[in-house]
Amino acid sequence: MNINIILFRDFETLDVFGPVEILGKLPDEYKIKYYSPEGGIVLSRQGTQVVTEPLNTIGHQEILLIPGGQGTRELVLNEDFIHQLRVIAEQSLFCLTVCTGSALLAKTGLLKKRRATSNKNAFRWVMSVDREVNWIKKARWVTDGKYYTSSGVSAGMDMALGFIADQFGPKKAKEIAQSIEYIWNSDPENDIFERDDI
Amino acid sequence: MNINIILFRDFETLDVFGPVEILGKLPDEYKIKYYSPEGGIVLSRQGTQVVTEPLNTIGHQEILLIPGGQGTRELVLNEDFIHQLRVIAEQSLFCLTVCTGSALLAKTGLLKKRRATSNKNAFRWVMSVDREVNWIKKARWVTDGKYYTSSGVSAGMDMALGFIADQFGPKKAKEIAQSIEYIWNSDPENDIFERDDI
Repeated sequence: MNINIILFRDFETLDVFGPVEILGKLPDEYKIKYYSPEGGIVLSRQGTQVVTEPLNTIGHQEILLIPGGQGTRELVLNEDFIHQLRVIAEQSLFCLTVCTGSALLAKTGLLKKRRATSNKNAFRWVMSVDREVNWIKKARWVTDGKYYTSSGVSAGMDMALGFIADQFGPKKAKEIAQSIEYIWNSDPENDIFERDDI
Repeated sequence: MNINIILFRDFETLDVFGPVEILGKLPDEYKIKYYSPEGGIVLSRQGTQVVTEPLNTIGHQEILLIPGGQGTRELVLNEDFIHQLRVIAEQSLFCLTVCTGSALLAKTGLLKKRRATSNKNAFRWVMSVDREVNWIKKARWVTDGKYYTSSGVSAGMDMALGFIADQFGPKKAKEIAQSIEYIWNSDPENDIFERDDI
């Protein structure tokens, strides 16, 4: 099974590589693959150049991961991309977003009436993308059917471990957390970054 | 000031991109640059292809970051690389390692008589690289002069925030942790992954 990650200019570095570190610990189960609208080298917000394949070569019936970052502000207005993303997300077995990646997914309309979350620092903007989403303000991550959405940046790691726990049991998730010396916040509702002002 | 990161085949993904996420939050202070022995595209253990420049073009008097990962096992035996690394590390203002990156640095001889740490899962091997290092088994990260060494994988993020705190004050480190919704383990001696068997 492939984990298909969609990159774009100014994606947030850890939104991608936190989950990749965790999902990549199961090489017999998951292969990590990177895509971008045009393919080629994509630059993260923090200055990392990553090699990607063109989005029109992405596989179906696989697992999709959409990071967030400054680049989502422009990409959410790109109708061709959003249309393409909708088709890919519909065909994916699971669709995971980190941070403002949920804004891109919301823009496709696939989150309507569903529960989802995002980064606190961008929450108002993300909500404005689709007010018919049931946006959850206090959550480390939210699961609704095949859709997993996480709050800001490092929350993507907790969500990835939660996804592993759902697929392979909590023991496997705990083993991975231990192997990378990561203190897993395993309760999706335990969110110390909750804010009153959003 | 450049943050010069040395990549090699089978580097551990989060060893690099955890600190990059944090150090990259200060774009006016730090520019992230990637190097590898030959330059070109380097593949991480978790299947990420990153673009790098050749190691012989690296700047002096800058900040060096050495990740760990499976690839260190081979690289530690490469005398030409270790010689080159010694020169670069000596000339760097600060030298940070994550996980088994400390084995590469130890092999240069520059950690002799100094305090340092590494990943628990590889601790015995790392100690065997240079027994004249004062290896600290219980530590999230260790600072000795210009050398910062962290324990396993995600500990690199705590160390990067510790480095920011040392350079710019703890308030700045806490702001960055908050912005990425990361629960910073700010006490380098608070290590819940301590083990009796190493």
